[in-house]
Amino acid sequence: MIHVVGHTAIDNISKVPHLPKANCSTHISDRQIYFGGGASNIAAGIAMLGEEVTLHSCIGGDFVGSEYELWMKKLGIRRQFFIVPDAHTPTAFMFTDENGDQMTFFEWGASKAFATADAPALPFVHMATADPEFNCRVAERSEFTSFDPGQDVFWYTKEQLTSIIDNTDILFANQHEVHQMCTTLGISREELVRKVDMAIFTMSGDGSTLTTRENEYFVPVVPVTLADPTGASDSYRAGFLSA
Amino acid sequence: MIHVVGHTAIDNISKVPHLPKANCSTHISDRQIYFGGGASNIAAGIAMLGEEVTLHSCIGGDFVGSEYELWMKKLGIRRQFFIVPDAHTPTAFMFTDENGDQMTFFEWGASKAFATADAPALPFVHMATADPEFNCRVAERSEFTSFDPGQDVFWYTKEQLTSIIDNTDILFANQHEVHQMCTTLGISREELVRKVDMAIFTMSGDGSTLTTRENEYFVPVVPVTLADPTGASDSYRAGFLSA
Repeated sequence: MIHVVGHTAIDNISKVPHLPKANCSTHISDRQIYFGGGASNIAAGIAMLGEEVTLHSCIGGDFVGSEYELWMKKLGIRRQFFIVPDAHTPTAFMFTDENGDQMTFFEWGASKAFATADAPALPFVHMATADPEFNCRVAERSEFTSFDPGQDVFWYTKEQLTSIIDNTDILFANQHEVHQMCTTLGISREELVRKVDMAIFTMSGDGSTLTTRENEYFVPVVPVTLADPTGASDSYRAGFLSA
Repeated sequence: MIHVVGHTAIDNISKVPHLPKANCSTHISDRQIYFGGGASNIAAGIAMLGEEVTLHSCIGGDFVGSEYELWMKKLGIRRQFFIVPDAHTPTAFMFTDENGDQMTFFEWGASKAFATADAPALPFVHMATADPEFNCRVAERSEFTSFDPGQDVFWYTKEQLTSIIDNTDILFANQHEVHQMCTTLGISREELVRKVDMAIFTMSGDGSTLTTRENEYFVPVVPVTLADPTGASDSYRAGFLSA
């Protein structure tokens, strides 16, 4: 059983003819609702690969009985939710105009419950983007931990990052995140790598590296036709952890 | 039985610390979802006043079984809906920052179905904001008609406005809308008033006038403590039509 901790979110992706200025309005020509959130994406990937998975997320009263929940049930994802009945499930509103310019509004919503939630002690856990403090507490109490700071890397203090990496077995990051972690911690890339059993650093179209205490392996890309890059790194983590 | 034609809409009203520029994001500190749409507001008012009412709106697959629908059922509103299963119920997203500046994104969604829907022939109908062409067809076929162009007054061509007012018994408008109708039609306020049996023109805090072919009545305001002006004119129409 792989446990995944982090956001379950609802993405509203809309097309507009132009982005509005302050005190103006525009009309939405198309709006699609996607099942998102990094942790939920990873859990779905693991479930699709046939592994047992439990998702730990904060959700609002709007999630119970929703199509998103039904889809998780169908995939066989076990759910350990912190339910905040009077809050919304984290929701993103993205508006893209005809020039490809974009505006994003993100509602943290129910995820505020991470701040006060009891951190579970888990045998094998992957920590995706969520509350840094909550992730630190999960890492401290859990046995085997995989950590992926993602775009939240900017929100981790030096103390939080030191604490969570001390408790991390597998570290996932892209080049920007590696750079930011080294800056926050004031250490080199080599020193960062030595702090964990396995460091997996991705380099977009250039493949990725897996560094253990003994060896460094280069993992080449598998060329595919690009359909949509959204969630690609979540799929990578789902595949790696399942394998 | 009073029939009301026009929008049923869902209003998402969010607070943000600042409005984003293009290619930037912001977080939502609070999001409230309101049951909106002018026609739906008026139907709810009529139902609350104890009169029988039927609402004619275009709704999406998301409306069926929603809390909004359950609320309408509880109020006893009869529903004659054009259902577009693969579209959303018209939805507005309003974001207000700490300076009170605002951005609005409106999704017309299922209301596109008005364009091709069969117009009903009704004994007593109020037409709120909706598709101008559809409202013209309803007015043409119905017996006793009340018309309220609202902010859609700018979307009516001279031909559409001429046609619908020729078939209108009661005309509701505020001062801006009266001015715009006179401009579009190229006639004076007096000529506009003479085209209908009853013209009800509101003047915000200064009260309103009811003009028939014989008399003009001034209706003073009833002073109240302002809680929220949203939908005030919808309540006015609900009260007038019920009485």
